[in-house]
Amino acid sequence: MNYRELMQKKNVRPYVLMARFGLEKENQRSTREGLLATTEHPTVFGNRSYHPYIQTDFSETQLELITPVANSGTEMLRFLDAIHDVARRSIPEDEMLWPLSMPPQLPTKDEEIKIAKLDQYDAVLYRRYLAKEYGKRKQMVSGIHFNFEYDQALIQQLYDEQSEVTDCKQFKTKVYMKVARNFLRYRWLITYLFGASPVSEDRYFRVYDDQPQEPVRSIRNSTYGYRNHDNVKVSYASLERYLEDIHRMVENGLLSEEKEFYAPVRLRGGKQMSDLPKTGIRYIELRNLDLNPFSRLGIVEDTVDFLHYFMLYLLWTDEKEEADEWVKTGDIFNEQVALGHPHETIKLIAEGDRIFSEMIDMLDALGIRKGKEVVGKYYQQLRNPQDTVSGKMWTIIQENSNSELGNIFGNQYQSMAFERPYQLAGFREMELSTQIFLFDAIQKGLEIEILDEQEQFLKLQHGEHIEYVKNANMTSKDNYVVPLIMENKTVTKKILSAAGFHVPGGEEFSSFIEAQEAHLRYANKAFVVKPKSTNYGLGITIFKEGASLEDFTEALRIAFKEDTAVLIEEFLPGTEYRFFVLDNDVKAIMLRVPANVTGDGKHTVEELVAAKNSDPLRGTNHRAPLELIQLNDLEKLMLKEQGLTIYSVPEKEQIVYLRENSNVSTGGDSIDMTDVIDDSYKQIAIEAVAALGAKICGIDLIIPDKDVKGTRDSLTYGIIEANFNPAMHMHVYPYAGQGRRLTMDVLKLLYPEVVQ
Amino acid sequence: MNYRELMQKKNVRPYVLMARFGLEKENQRSTREGLLATTEHPTVFGNRSYHPYIQTDFSETQLELITPVANSGTEMLRFLDAIHDVARRSIPEDEMLWPLSMPPQLPTKDEEIKIAKLDQYDAVLYRRYLAKEYGKRKQMVSGIHFNFEYDQALIQQLYDEQSEVTDCKQFKTKVYMKVARNFLRYRWLITYLFGASPVSEDRYFRVYDDQPQEPVRSIRNSTYGYRNHDNVKVSYASLERYLEDIHRMVENGLLSEEKEFYAPVRLRGGKQMSDLPKTGIRYIELRNLDLNPFSRLGIVEDTVDFLHYFMLYLLWTDEKEEADEWVKTGDIFNEQVALGHPHETIKLIAEGDRIFSEMIDMLDALGIRKGKEVVGKYYQQLRNPQDTVSGKMWTIIQENSNSELGNIFGNQYQSMAFERPYQLAGFREMELSTQIFLFDAIQKGLEIEILDEQEQFLKLQHGEHIEYVKNANMTSKDNYVVPLIMENKTVTKKILSAAGFHVPGGEEFSSFIEAQEAHLRYANKAFVVKPKSTNYGLGITIFKEGASLEDFTEALRIAFKEDTAVLIEEFLPGTEYRFFVLDNDVKAIMLRVPANVTGDGKHTVEELVAAKNSDPLRGTNHRAPLELIQLNDLEKLMLKEQGLTIYSVPEKEQIVYLRENSNVSTGGDSIDMTDVIDDSYKQIAIEAVAALGAKICGIDLIIPDKDVKGTRDSLTYGIIEANFNPAMHMHVYPYAGQGRRLTMDVLKLLYPEVVQ
Repeated sequence: MNYRELMQKKNVRPYVLMARFGLEKENQRSTREGLLATTEHPTVFGNRSYHPYIQTDFSETQLELITPVANSGTEMLRFLDAIHDVARRSIPEDEMLWPLSMPPQLPTKDEEIKIAKLDQYDAVLYRRYLAKEYGKRKQMVSGIHFNFEYDQALIQQLYDEQSEVTDCKQFKTKVYMKVARNFLRYRWLITYLFGASPVSEDRYFRVYDDQPQEPVRSIRNSTYGYRNHDNVKVSYASLERYLEDIHRMVENGLLSEEKEFYAPVRLRGGKQMSDLPKTGIRYIELRNLDLNPFSRLGIVEDTVDFLHYFMLYLLWTDEKEEADEWVKTGDIFNEQVALGHPHETIKLIAEGDRIFSEMIDMLDALGIRKGKEVVGKYYQQLRNPQDTVSGKMWTIIQENSNSELGNIFGNQYQSMAFERPYQLAGFREMELSTQIFLFDAIQKGLEIEILDEQEQFLKLQHGEHIEYVKNANMTSKDNYVVPLIMENKTVTKKILSAAGFHVPGGEEFSSFIEAQEAHLRYANKAFVVKPKSTNYGLGITIFKEGASLEDFTEALRIAFKEDTAVLIEEFLPGTEYRFFVLDNDVKAIMLRVPANVTGDGKHTVEELVAAKNSDPLRGTNHRAPLELIQLNDLEKLMLKEQGLTIYSVPEKEQIVYLRENSNVSTGGDSIDMTDVIDDSYKQIAIEAVAALGAKICGIDLIIPDKDVKGTRDSLTYGIIEANFNPAMHMHVYPYAGQGRRLTMDVLKLLYPEVVQ
Repeated sequence: MNYRELMQKKNVRPYVLMARFGLEKENQRSTREGLLATTEHPTVFGNRSYHPYIQTDFSETQLELITPVANSGTEMLRFLDAIHDVARRSIPEDEMLWPLSMPPQLPTKDEEIKIAKLDQYDAVLYRRYLAKEYGKRKQMVSGIHFNFEYDQALIQQLYDEQSEVTDCKQFKTKVYMKVARNFLRYRWLITYLFGASPVSEDRYFRVYDDQPQEPVRSIRNSTYGYRNHDNVKVSYASLERYLEDIHRMVENGLLSEEKEFYAPVRLRGGKQMSDLPKTGIRYIELRNLDLNPFSRLGIVEDTVDFLHYFMLYLLWTDEKEEADEWVKTGDIFNEQVALGHPHETIKLIAEGDRIFSEMIDMLDALGIRKGKEVVGKYYQQLRNPQDTVSGKMWTIIQENSNSELGNIFGNQYQSMAFERPYQLAGFREMELSTQIFLFDAIQKGLEIEILDEQEQFLKLQHGEHIEYVKNANMTSKDNYVVPLIMENKTVTKKILSAAGFHVPGGEEFSSFIEAQEAHLRYANKAFVVKPKSTNYGLGITIFKEGASLEDFTEALRIAFKEDTAVLIEEFLPGTEYRFFVLDNDVKAIMLRVPANVTGDGKHTVEELVAAKNSDPLRGTNHRAPLELIQLNDLEKLMLKEQGLTIYSVPEKEQIVYLRENSNVSTGGDSIDMTDVIDDSYKQIAIEAVAALGAKICGIDLIIPDKDVKGTRDSLTYGIIEANFNPAMHMHVYPYAGQGRRLTMDVLKLLYPEVVQ
């Protein structure tokens, strides 16, 4: 089969870069000082029996972070980034993820290395067997398993262009067998470029162990790493031979079960190796990547891209020896490279040159221009071993120590995760509430899929239970008419009023003349004229002490400019509070205060604003829970009205307001009042939301005096508005008062079986 | 109490016209030839035990049409109009509503006059008692009961301006007692203007009955109408006296129960007369209006307006005698006028002059300019008895006969109700689907309230069960994420595809460059380029046989003009069918065919179009189930491409298309295919809608060959789109094929306890 020719066919080329990616990455949890953690797997992650993203591997301290399958390396890495953010912010405060493949210094006694406390007894038994057979310490090494699948469309196009094989599944298996053999043959290059386990800590090797001459490129990828015993030998000549060999060794007791067979590459079909004859090979798992300590994710995007092109190259390039020989040569080369000194030039330069130049030829032939930069960059490292990962590590270790290297980077990544704790790495372009919601969903082990990123459209899954969520709280728990009701102020008021709640009295007009005739009924009242569908306060006029016919008419003119229908509404005096009601419970109450600073008798308004703006909770464009306070024309005008400028120095405790409106989006403060407001008002809010039929609702109450108890049929309150997609981030991270994790409440509503 | 002064107060005047209105109207059902109907109350109206709008009165043939309470006369009349439309289109085809107060010719035998077959046995017993006590024939007369309530705000303002009475409820009762006495005193004017029962048919009076000298103005409002026996006398001096008198007569056996007391005015509080001491008088029921045969509703808007001003006048004008005397004088005057010849001038001209000129003074004093025209018009009739209703009737009866009068108008109104059977009188400004939906809701006896007319927002109620409905099929039965899913084509496709349905393959791009790079994958396929959120087909390019890079790039440019995200989608060949799925059942399937005419070898295209457009199903602006076919530039271009002009004469059976697109909104034909499409496709549609979680959905399937059975995992079909607010009117009234009453299906989904 001439794959090189097939790959260049006109019908194949458009699909050649299409692939699917997935990644599993282990990390030991350590203290911030670099000692193996002694705590159990954090309960905040829920149950390990189903968690799709955060698991434990061999030991209780060994986190395994798992990405979902992605259609690009970039997509895979963003998930990995998010999962890291969740893991780092969820482990105990005095812990971190140990960033090296080689474990931190291990306890003297083996029994202090705790095997992962899994629910499934057979999984525990298997780990006990491994501990006994290979020693606990070798199982403490961490690495990355990289799953790669050629897109089915690519396989199909390749299959269609050839005639040797007449079954597409067989063809696919043939493709992966070739690629696996080539991978084993050429994997020394991966070890060379990305090997990252040069030295071991004290007590890693037992005194009687045979030990490598450290430093090396990769202890983990050498025979000193976790390997099957020498008598385990498997042929990659065909899938049949491969399966037969493994089967025989299990029968003969050389392996306890199929999965004990450990190799740098694993052929994947179904869940078990025993599914392979039925499923054929569906994808391939590369197991020889060490953790790159120079990335907070243990791997960088260039590496992922290089691996992608490398996988194409393994398909492209012909084998030059019979299968078993070919693989055996690869093993020898890999061992040479793995155990070489990180700063020494390798002996395989010539083969390296050939691989890289063939890769570049391939990229040219397939028109993959953007690949040449990455491949070129790694080509440069062929003759510059100090630029490889292990090379750079050794430079640092020489001057400091391996444990310091681990400590410095581990702590740095841990701090980075808390710089903007309300954001979720990888998803920073999404709305803040959705970022927080995704954080919680990942933490609790719900499978997530971003159906539409711009539209904040998510799919969640747990077992068979699927939920779709938009904008973090638009869910299946509300019925369709509920948002339609809330969208319509007149309808909302009619329903609330019919249910006996106090809403501002008023009338709707679609005729200017008829609206004007209503003047006499409002001349001496406090009232508001507003367009029926108002946004951002446009077209609203407030008359706090009645209005002349002239002013009234002018207000109507302004309102009718915005809409064909206008509301004239009684003005309710008092303070407005946002009640966040979920599932018949008030989960949060918020007071919004206009942008302001408090004087200290020393600093100018400008300086006070700058100081207040330095709060990491403040940002721009709704990607932070609070917005920066501006000092533009409106704010300056507001200052002027108070006889101030931005250079004035307000007295100690003097509160200076910079805005009249209380919107958080114009620099206002959000103040949690959940525990301050009397239960009587909470009851009113709950009942009003129930009258509207809503499960999730932000309802705004005007309360003239919060120290007076509220009663449903009184003027102690008035309901202004109900919102069907109320902002949540401002409650989770308020300016003052306690944060309320509303996103978790929504998850609990959707998945009571998962979130308690 | 000087009401005249109170009403002119500054704080009262803005509220003086505010009032609430309601109306009950009886009609005998007759054959189209004018004989009393012999059929039972139509079962299509559901159950009389709760129907709020359509009931039976005394006899099984006597429909009682009841409006809900309205805030204006106009609002009340629109409901009355709608209820009439429903009644007329629901009774048997060979029946009509007899338009006269006096019944059509009655059967010889009393037993052929059937008492209404009500569920409540006591209601039947009461009717049997009335039949025995007063005779069945007098109970067969029909009329209008007009309910009137001064708005609570008006009562409150009046109350606030006085100091005589210190309880607002008592004040209100006092107001209504005065108005009731004045009404009884001056009601002769109503009898004069609106009396409409001049003659009786044979057999109405029994031979031994005392009979009036016909013609008169109003048999019904004279002592020859249905009246209590002479010994029943009640004082209106105060509510207490009134209740005492009635109570005593029941005790003495002169009345069987309170409600047997029959008077031209009834004081209303709660449901029973016995509630009045507790509730006070809340509104007043005027019972002396005959049916006006010159209106399809039995009453015209001017009459309603006049009654409104008359009610204000009765409050305005002082009483001039002691209560009982005052009422007695009124009875005498009324009898005089009722039994007068319809063409003769009355003796009460002087009092008439006084009433009318005082009314006009009042309108001036209160600034009600628009009232003067109506009052002026009726003033003119004071000296022109031939212009009154009875006057006009007598003119016709003289030349024809009373039964012909009833026949002609009854038949005319019946025909009018069928001119546009898809519309609902009173609600013609609403969307057609909502009009049909309202028709069905009224027919089945669901209480309806229009919460927002422009927004098609309805409230339905049956007992305690409330449902809100927008645009006729946006209901509580769908959950909130369902429409959000369908709004988003990418998300819809992802979900359907994940569930194993065939959707057009494709990709979404928000980068122009990346989209362009996809060219190779589509160069040789049939595909579509379209903006992600497309409306009205803007920005879409279809390539049926692949595209060059230039054409592809141009198509991208066009699409990116409309949206920031663009879809490239496989083009599925075949015919598109709309499946309307409701509650896991395909209720209708529709094929839409582009605007076309079929030649006859004689007429020009222009003539054929005109002929096709004469179908009453065709209209404009979505207020008819089909739109008129246009002959504008696009259509002429389409003709030109076929070598035709609008003056060409197509051959017999030749189909000439005038449009490429199949939208009904551009003159396309809607063809019902529900019984034609194989069940296998229905099953696919049902399962796809279930995968989307929807209860109500219009899902569009492309089917290449409908004669081949469809299977879910095949290319026998492709799902193009799912719609959460699918049009219903086109299915109810298709161009060809059977209509499907989808509105009734929606009602059944919402109210299974009412609609079977």
